[in-house]
Amino acid sequence: MPYGDGMNARVRSEERRAEIVGAALEVIAERGYRGASLAAVAERVGLTQQGLLHYFPTKDALLVAVLQERDRWDAVPDTRWRIDLLASLVEYNAMRPAIIQTFSALLGESVTEGHPARAYFTERYAQVRENMTAVLRAEYGDRLPNGLTPERTAPLLIAVMDGLQYQWLLDPESVDMPGAFRDFLRLLGEPVE
Amino acid sequence: MPYGDGMNARVRSEERRAEIVGAALEVIAERGYRGASLAAVAERVGLTQQGLLHYFPTKDALLVAVLQERDRWDAVPDTRWRIDLLASLVEYNAMRPAIIQTFSALLGESVTEGHPARAYFTERYAQVRENMTAVLRAEYGDRLPNGLTPERTAPLLIAVMDGLQYQWLLDPESVDMPGAFRDFLRLLGEPVE
Repeated sequence: MPYGDGMNARVRSEERRAEIVGAALEVIAERGYRGASLAAVAERVGLTQQGLLHYFPTKDALLVAVLQERDRWDAVPDTRWRIDLLASLVEYNAMRPAIIQTFSALLGESVTEGHPARAYFTERYAQVRENMTAVLRAEYGDRLPNGLTPERTAPLLIAVMDGLQYQWLLDPESVDMPGAFRDFLRLLGEPVE
Repeated sequence: MPYGDGMNARVRSEERRAEIVGAALEVIAERGYRGASLAAVAERVGLTQQGLLHYFPTKDALLVAVLQERDRWDAVPDTRWRIDLLASLVEYNAMRPAIIQTFSALLGESVTEGHPARAYFTERYAQVRENMTAVLRAEYGDRLPNGLTPERTAPLLIAVMDGLQYQWLLDPESVDMPGAFRDFLRLLGEPVE
């Protein structure tokens, strides 16, 4: 087989995988992970369930791919995060409700017993608390204007982002998620217009 | 049938219902609502599924009872809430992880399509935002020390409570939920030791 054809086959296979992951994101947003079926994902991309298993042998393998996809999006090198970029991230999130719905549903499920995403979220939050601590320290030093340390502020920053997502997903007309997040930055002592 | 026997039968029936609701809370904490089955709830209270349907004709009817149960616990008359009582509520929540797990799982699921708890959570958050606005106004007047209005602070207060619950459920050793909530009150200008 000429080299070019092998490349094309690989590219086609990767495109197909990406398409399946995209369909899985949608199905999880609609039904949660426990409520999602491989059959529903397969149908959405025009595959049989058997055909889908060629790409992802189990439902959990597909979940891993979904979570890796998220890590790819969020992979801003730590040193480049700044407080004001977080406000932009929240603005951006407000333009992609489907994806926020997927991960809010998954986070909610992850606290149930033996959930396959539990370890992922536990490690992710430990990591994000560490990153946010570094961002806050770079901005404010060892104490914020209100006297809290970066270590004690980081969990609050993350909690506000997550908690606002639920209120906003449930009632987007009543909750201005980016505005509320800017208000929180104002509580930290960030100058906001 | 003598009056007394009728009373006893009613009391027994209500005890049975309460037992079923308790079992449903556990099963939802373990599996979420979509992952919960009436069969699992029935088994936990030693009933057949048919026997359970006598008390709750559908899974959604049982969910309604679960949500009403929550409303009963939280039914502190509005005028009695004070900021410092919220800190006590979070301390109390940290002693009942199972119930917090149930409602964190339900909140997560509620953002998925056509979830039977969605309307409940949407209305509940609108109500809680209003109640918290009143609490903040009673404490601080029309502006908090940082310049935010009670209306703009209420969604943040609720978001922090919800968001901290997820971080704490996933990693109770690393996250001091009551301490973090007191830190948030400190951001609002509340004197904290």
